[in-house]
Amino acid sequence: MARARSRGRRVADRNAVEQSPFGQVPNPYDPMRVLSDDQVEALHHASLRVLRDNGMEFQLPRAVEILRKAGATVGEDGKRVHFDPAFVEEKLETVPRRFTLHGRSSHRDLEFGGNDAIWGSVGSAPNVSDRERGRVTGNFEDYKNLIRLCHALNAVHALAGYPVEPVDLPVRTRHLHAVAASVTLTDKPVFGYAIGHERMADAIEIARIARGIGHDDLLHQPSIHTVVNSNSPLIYDGGLLEGAIVMAEMNQPVVYTPFTLSGAMAPINVAGALVLQNAEALAGIVFSQCVNPGAPAVYGSFTSNVDMKSGSPAFGTPEYAKATIATGQLARRYGIPWRSSNATASNAADAQAAYESQMSIWPVVLAQANYVIHGFGWIEGGLCASYEKFIMDAEMVQMMQAFLKPLDTSEEELGLDAIAEVGPGGHFFGCDHTMARYETAFYRPMLSDWRNFENWRDAGAVETSDRATRIWKQLLADYEEPSLDPAIAEELDAFVAQRVAEGGAPER
Amino acid sequence: MARARSRGRRVADRNAVEQSPFGQVPNPYDPMRVLSDDQVEALHHASLRVLRDNGMEFQLPRAVEILRKAGATVGEDGKRVHFDPAFVEEKLETVPRRFTLHGRSSHRDLEFGGNDAIWGSVGSAPNVSDRERGRVTGNFEDYKNLIRLCHALNAVHALAGYPVEPVDLPVRTRHLHAVAASVTLTDKPVFGYAIGHERMADAIEIARIARGIGHDDLLHQPSIHTVVNSNSPLIYDGGLLEGAIVMAEMNQPVVYTPFTLSGAMAPINVAGALVLQNAEALAGIVFSQCVNPGAPAVYGSFTSNVDMKSGSPAFGTPEYAKATIATGQLARRYGIPWRSSNATASNAADAQAAYESQMSIWPVVLAQANYVIHGFGWIEGGLCASYEKFIMDAEMVQMMQAFLKPLDTSEEELGLDAIAEVGPGGHFFGCDHTMARYETAFYRPMLSDWRNFENWRDAGAVETSDRATRIWKQLLADYEEPSLDPAIAEELDAFVAQRVAEGGAPER
Repeated sequence: MARARSRGRRVADRNAVEQSPFGQVPNPYDPMRVLSDDQVEALHHASLRVLRDNGMEFQLPRAVEILRKAGATVGEDGKRVHFDPAFVEEKLETVPRRFTLHGRSSHRDLEFGGNDAIWGSVGSAPNVSDRERGRVTGNFEDYKNLIRLCHALNAVHALAGYPVEPVDLPVRTRHLHAVAASVTLTDKPVFGYAIGHERMADAIEIARIARGIGHDDLLHQPSIHTVVNSNSPLIYDGGLLEGAIVMAEMNQPVVYTPFTLSGAMAPINVAGALVLQNAEALAGIVFSQCVNPGAPAVYGSFTSNVDMKSGSPAFGTPEYAKATIATGQLARRYGIPWRSSNATASNAADAQAAYESQMSIWPVVLAQANYVIHGFGWIEGGLCASYEKFIMDAEMVQMMQAFLKPLDTSEEELGLDAIAEVGPGGHFFGCDHTMARYETAFYRPMLSDWRNFENWRDAGAVETSDRATRIWKQLLADYEEPSLDPAIAEELDAFVAQRVAEGGAPER
Repeated sequence: MARARSRGRRVADRNAVEQSPFGQVPNPYDPMRVLSDDQVEALHHASLRVLRDNGMEFQLPRAVEILRKAGATVGEDGKRVHFDPAFVEEKLETVPRRFTLHGRSSHRDLEFGGNDAIWGSVGSAPNVSDRERGRVTGNFEDYKNLIRLCHALNAVHALAGYPVEPVDLPVRTRHLHAVAASVTLTDKPVFGYAIGHERMADAIEIARIARGIGHDDLLHQPSIHTVVNSNSPLIYDGGLLEGAIVMAEMNQPVVYTPFTLSGAMAPINVAGALVLQNAEALAGIVFSQCVNPGAPAVYGSFTSNVDMKSGSPAFGTPEYAKATIATGQLARRYGIPWRSSNATASNAADAQAAYESQMSIWPVVLAQANYVIHGFGWIEGGLCASYEKFIMDAEMVQMMQAFLKPLDTSEEELGLDAIAEVGPGGHFFGCDHTMARYETAFYRPMLSDWRNFENWRDAGAVETSDRATRIWKQLLADYEEPSLDPAIAEELDAFVAQRVAEGGAPER
């Protein structure tokens, strides 16, 4: 497990970007609650009623069969699966409370569960932007650069999807090049898409080869992860279920995330949307345990609301904040690791992007989400990955990690000697208490400019978004590819070449 | 007491700015804790040791005499006052746990204490800026415009100081024109500066006249408020103490706020800075009770840290967040209302300003501060009031108020009928559950732009800060001065004219 460590803090090159060290920071505070225990039970029981009375459509005959054999009831259409409350409760018992998600290097291994958080990159954006070029369609060059940026930013723990979709790669073989590039350009944990059986299996195999482990070890070492979204309301797509089955069989973690946008695909109030979210997430998790009891499954939350004026999805809203914190309470009730997001609807990496992201990040931290997808770089409700937003998010996440370091109130930290030494009207700059602590006393920012107005103005009055441009460029200029055993690189190349020659995966 | 009400939400003029209604929103959640109970006690007892062993310098002979008579010990220099722990604990017992702060109109009255929050404007900025003119020195025209903006913005509950210093007014009579303008341009609660006896007394008298109450009523109705900062470490200034005495004698609330900037005027770690803050705040509060037992006194917190690279003050830092939440725990231990701030060091109303303010606003809300000074418009660590930042802050505070509305999990809100009606793959837009709720379901933003990228781009790709410019201009264009009884206006004019003729207050 990678805990924050001190190395890497001091930088020799004065142009180099100063960052907090890589590592997870456990949350020492009590999780926040927006619901009473009775309210949590009300949502739980309402969800069970939905699963029993309405059921959920599984659009894959094999998945329906797995559920039927495990004890669920299947409707006359052969798709609608009804879950008895006792069946749900029983199946939830085998879900791991925590597990380790492995990177290609062991110091990148991450703890998934408890009071630990994994901060992942933006995933699946169809467009990419920076403040110099503007917005362009996703492509492999930007895909690789964003992965380099994920590698370079210590705040980014894992890839949580393709940071931007490389649409210039052919559909059938895209996943092979994309996942192979990801394990090459970073040694942090990677992600594969559950779009059908073949793509998922290929991604798992690439992750396994990259880590240099055998198939048996893979079964005990989560080495890649994926998200399976429901098509809310109440549908799991066939292709995603194929991927979910492969993952569960190989003991690789799947995040079951209902896309419950309140007012569109879910009821128009937070409580109603949470009932639907909870029903759908539980159905996915129960399914995973029917495939393979004990397979790591993660409770996904993505409940936000639409703008009732335009119908557009909104993120980082007050409703989003409440839904996020309530989800933490539900997931803790089940003892299941859970996932949230750092989201904004802003069309630019500007002040709205910052405050909507904060309206996501604070709830995520207060509610102790274990995994934060879209933690870095997301704007436009997920339709664009922004280089500048990556830097803003890294700064904001680093600040939260510093916030999570507990206050030390031991006798020597109370400063009584210093207060006596300095006396009325004195200054603490030079006293022993200060000299012993000044290098590490406070969080040091990467992006924030704390100079006074005159110095800032004389240096060009560069606002935050434009400072972010300089930083990501510097990080890419300084990027160094993590070393990879040549034998592993060769095996990776061979696997990709073979699968490309075979024609890749079917189009969907 | 002004609770959020529904009027004012719908606007007839399509150019008019849509806002949440005026009113306080009580916080229904448990206050956050970053300290254990033992840690709170450790800070408390360390503070008492500072007050006993080091004492605090009161730079006003009359104040020292008040404290001596009440039972404190005075050093040989006649300034340094030492407080016995039992004396401190005894004096804290008479501090009101809550009170009402009155506006000129009764629907502007505010609850001060408990789980209620008062959000006040920026105070005391020497400069003012907007994105068209840039930054200029404070002046009376901008002073009046910012008060009009405070009046127009529903999120602003009270004036928390001069939003910008009107330095073009003569020093001796500035307070007369400034406070008279404030009670004329808004009916929300106002603020006076405790810079010597005369200024404070004049401000109280203007507030009394504006409210149309007698001197006896004033003694039972807090009608103006002020802040008394300590000169950390361990000094209370003579002029401020003069003002504090007038206020306490008239039963008007004083916020005792230590200026404990960690690493400069306070120890370099949060625990040490909190010990000093707590000692100084308690000393001020104890002093108020020695002047007049039962006078409303507020615990002020302003602990942040310096940038160790430049020595500049930093705000909205992780350390600031922890200090704020810890202060809430200390203030609740004493059962005394407390004050915090919405602060940022950013030199522009940009993304940094947004995320540093969020790093203030969230802790303030989680810790349930009762009074938030600099809630709107502050940038540059308080050296500038920004028109655009006013709008950004209003949006952020409105979002938090929406966040504080508890989730309703009653049977009809669980949405089970709607989920059954819509079924798998359906849409909630048209269902009864939606139609009954869509107008009020979600927070509606004032500044955030939720349109999709194409619509936003085609409308000029206006980023958040520049949208804020349009909004404050619209609000000022739509501003209407609140009505004032002509007899009161005449009395106000007469008082100001008389005091101007008398030469105003001494320069300090």
